[in-house]
Amino acid sequence: MKVAVFGMGLIGGSVAKDLRERNFATEIIGVGRSEVTNNKALELGLVDKILPKEEAVKIADLIILTVPVNVLVEELIFVLDNIQNHQVVTDMGSTKESIVEAVKNHKKRSRYVASHPMAGTENSGPTAAIYNLFDNKVCIICDKENSDKDALETVEKMYRCLNMHLKYMNAHQHDIHAAYISHISHISSFVLAATVLEKEKDEEAILEMAGGGFESTVRLAKSSPEMWTPIFMQNKTNILEVLDTYIEKMYSFRNYINKGKSEELNQFMRDANQIKKILK
Amino acid sequence: MKVAVFGMGLIGGSVAKDLRERNFATEIIGVGRSEVTNNKALELGLVDKILPKEEAVKIADLIILTVPVNVLVEELIFVLDNIQNHQVVTDMGSTKESIVEAVKNHKKRSRYVASHPMAGTENSGPTAAIYNLFDNKVCIICDKENSDKDALETVEKMYRCLNMHLKYMNAHQHDIHAAYISHISHISSFVLAATVLEKEKDEEAILEMAGGGFESTVRLAKSSPEMWTPIFMQNKTNILEVLDTYIEKMYSFRNYINKGKSEELNQFMRDANQIKKILK
Repeated sequence: MKVAVFGMGLIGGSVAKDLRERNFATEIIGVGRSEVTNNKALELGLVDKILPKEEAVKIADLIILTVPVNVLVEELIFVLDNIQNHQVVTDMGSTKESIVEAVKNHKKRSRYVASHPMAGTENSGPTAAIYNLFDNKVCIICDKENSDKDALETVEKMYRCLNMHLKYMNAHQHDIHAAYISHISHISSFVLAATVLEKEKDEEAILEMAGGGFESTVRLAKSSPEMWTPIFMQNKTNILEVLDTYIEKMYSFRNYINKGKSEELNQFMRDANQIKKILK
Repeated sequence: MKVAVFGMGLIGGSVAKDLRERNFATEIIGVGRSEVTNNKALELGLVDKILPKEEAVKIADLIILTVPVNVLVEELIFVLDNIQNHQVVTDMGSTKESIVEAVKNHKKRSRYVASHPMAGTENSGPTAAIYNLFDNKVCIICDKENSDKDALETVEKMYRCLNMHLKYMNAHQHDIHAAYISHISHISSFVLAATVLEKEKDEEAILEMAGGGFESTVRLAKSSPEMWTPIFMQNKTNILEVLDTYIEKMYSFRNYINKGKSEELNQFMRDANQIKKILK
């Protein structure tokens, strides 16, 4: 199967590596906007060749969009405008509702499968691409009833080749869950990094004390702003809702410390400890 | 060397395992307040025997206090009241200033070495004790000029046996760095867990989406409330200071999303990304 990958960063590059290694793709065509990224992807052997998107959509059986979500809709509409009925397109964006909404009346809508593989690292760009990134992680497929059966099967087969567990929900539910679990985690980590960098001027102390829990908690703050700015903007409503709960709880925590309310503080943490029941 | 360990949880138990395995201790005496913990520590072989503290302080060459910081001062004073001039006591508490302050005029002050090994996991209790917990981590020794040379050397030798890198600073500086780096990390994680547990009622969704960064960011929220309540209370002044910066930055982040200020949001994250320069 000929596969075209739009965007050759962490996600696109890692998909390309596994799909070739596992013999899913016979040829991988890269489509990128930046010449630097294109050359890097070729040099690293992530893709067999680089083509302009006009040519890539003519020959690819499966087109995978891994570009940031602010340019995803534009690329998706371009692909849908230009593909034939035997071709399939999917995306790997971290928001879903505004994307499916933008193409809901497109005459080729059913050739599109909306999906979100829940995998990644804090690194970005083609050099961040690694083998086995998706193994045993969860992939969410949205609004599958709006995709043709054969298109859905092609995408499911691709994700099974990546060793992912498939879950199904609608795009609206996806965006709520993503905000309440993944997006708020990234925000708390970005704010943690910004706070520590402002307050702690002794860089050596940061390095020395990082073992006390900071290193793992701040990991997500290394993530790409170009990827995350549009995610936060597109999922604004759900994110503001969970963010306000977060701020409210942070105030309670502050208040318990400030007022010396040990029992309330202890109870807050015992409640938070319940996360152990879900994540062993 | 005979070693007495007060407290046989994650830290005390892990210290005991390595000190025996690496032939630093010829005998390890456990001192605990709870019969359940005492029995568990014996059953797991963490200690050779359990003794009342009155007897333990008579025979131990080195006494290591690993109890929560709210009971640490009481135990430290008890030990200093009862030891001879050839015996040494150290503690492993996460706050230092209020502890050294409480014993500054004690006639045996110089037999005490204030220290804080920056290592741990989110688990607690004797069953959480593991080998090699401290390897290659940093241990901070405070106010070393207030300890006798031989007492300091004994404690340094013990931490070197645990394969720790030794750093020195005063207790006041330690508490500021700990608040600005480690303690704020724990708070952001506790608040994240509490927020997600309140907003996301679908436990399966939490498990499925945990791969999207939540799992590592929330890890510290599994930590022991009994250990952390007194740390937050004792280090209140420094913690409130960093917490207020955190809340202020969280408000900026919320405002950028709410007002659609993409460029400002992007810049905030680019600034946060600078943490990569310190933590590779």
